[in-house]
Amino acid sequence: MRIDIVSVLPELLESPLGHSIIHRAQKKGLAEIVVHPLRDYTHDKRRTVDDYAFGPDAGMVLKIQPIFECFQELMAERTYDEVIYTSPDGELLTQQLANQLSTKKNLLILCGHYKGIDHRVRENMVTREISIGDYVLSGGELAAAVIVDSVVRLIPGVLSDETSALTDSFQDNLLAPPVYTRPADFNGWKVPDILLSGNFAEIEKWQHKQAIERTKLLRPGLIDPKDE
Amino acid sequence: MRIDIVSVLPELLESPLGHSIIHRAQKKGLAEIVVHPLRDYTHDKRRTVDDYAFGPDAGMVLKIQPIFECFQELMAERTYDEVIYTSPDGELLTQQLANQLSTKKNLLILCGHYKGIDHRVRENMVTREISIGDYVLSGGELAAAVIVDSVVRLIPGVLSDETSALTDSFQDNLLAPPVYTRPADFNGWKVPDILLSGNFAEIEKWQHKQAIERTKLLRPGLIDPKDE
Repeated sequence: MRIDIVSVLPELLESPLGHSIIHRAQKKGLAEIVVHPLRDYTHDKRRTVDDYAFGPDAGMVLKIQPIFECFQELMAERTYDEVIYTSPDGELLTQQLANQLSTKKNLLILCGHYKGIDHRVRENMVTREISIGDYVLSGGELAAAVIVDSVVRLIPGVLSDETSALTDSFQDNLLAPPVYTRPADFNGWKVPDILLSGNFAEIEKWQHKQAIERTKLLRPGLIDPKDE
Repeated sequence: MRIDIVSVLPELLESPLGHSIIHRAQKKGLAEIVVHPLRDYTHDKRRTVDDYAFGPDAGMVLKIQPIFECFQELMAERTYDEVIYTSPDGELLTQQLANQLSTKKNLLILCGHYKGIDHRVRENMVTREISIGDYVLSGGELAAAVIVDSVVRLIPGVLSDETSALTDSFQDNLLAPPVYTRPADFNGWKVPDILLSGNFAEIEKWQHKQAIERTKLLRPGLIDPKDE
């Protein structure tokens, strides 16, 4: 899988893309992630990527021209399955959407910034707007990093133990059951006896029950969307 | 505001905390953000922070001891308004929650990792579990960065133009209206005439109408939670 990210603030993406799972996926040749600084596609001395919004409001808006030229260059090299724009009003990222995106070949992600981008980019060039949640960030870079991380770790072979991703929260619409490790007693705080029993069948039953109980208590909408 | 972040992978947080709004807030003395490497609180040569989960499942779990010692040290120095654990089964981060957290004095954020952390940490030491969305990340570092970004930008004085945060999406439960900047005509893609009219009262009316229409179309649940 190849992911191109277009950003005004490419420096912000350095450490999220350079460590952990994303780094491992790239080293294994399972993912190629390239960040394109939007300023490289400007033609003025000050490398201006934004301009005042039309209208009375405060805030700067990303200009259409550098984005257009950057996209043209990238799209001449390959066909993108999705051109994603990270925006608080996009469709919410879910584990299902991450699964779906993890099967694609080429993704292009445009990071928003300041008060937004010229709406004509969204109307004419973007195929999918994704929000990582109902809150506002100072830019789309963190959102892009979140999307990449959630997607790349699902590519087969990226996680060292393939069962790991399958037992994640949400893969079966249930939250994960509680986990514990040694010591069994820490200052009087004890691990549930069942987990120390060695009876794997009983443990799995307990874990499934816990997963259902935790989901009903904490996130009932995952089981029945009407409840959230 | 002071935010302490406890992490197994402090390197991952370097660029998100070192740029943009978060960097500016720290330079202005409005926020102090300190990352504590969890490995500094281990006592073995290999600086082990994780161990096998009790039970039959794959995956490693963060041990209770280093977290406990790190928290003890931090809590001896100051009182925390919240001890946050980033987890996919926590309460969902919203703009309202970010607003709320932005009024606090001291926050402590523990980043999850691998399959999770020893549940006794969550039962006995954490006061608030926050999820940035219904998807799984390879670690809690990106989630912590998202929380910090969404919160810090709301601290008065952090954004250069204070009206900026007030006109964000979600602050009034509406998505932001579309924004445009020059040129008014780009390859035949035109800015709506109203925005070029100079009639600010009419523009504001148009923007409000657009905000409502976009919200009804894209995120009806923000207006009426039953719709989502």
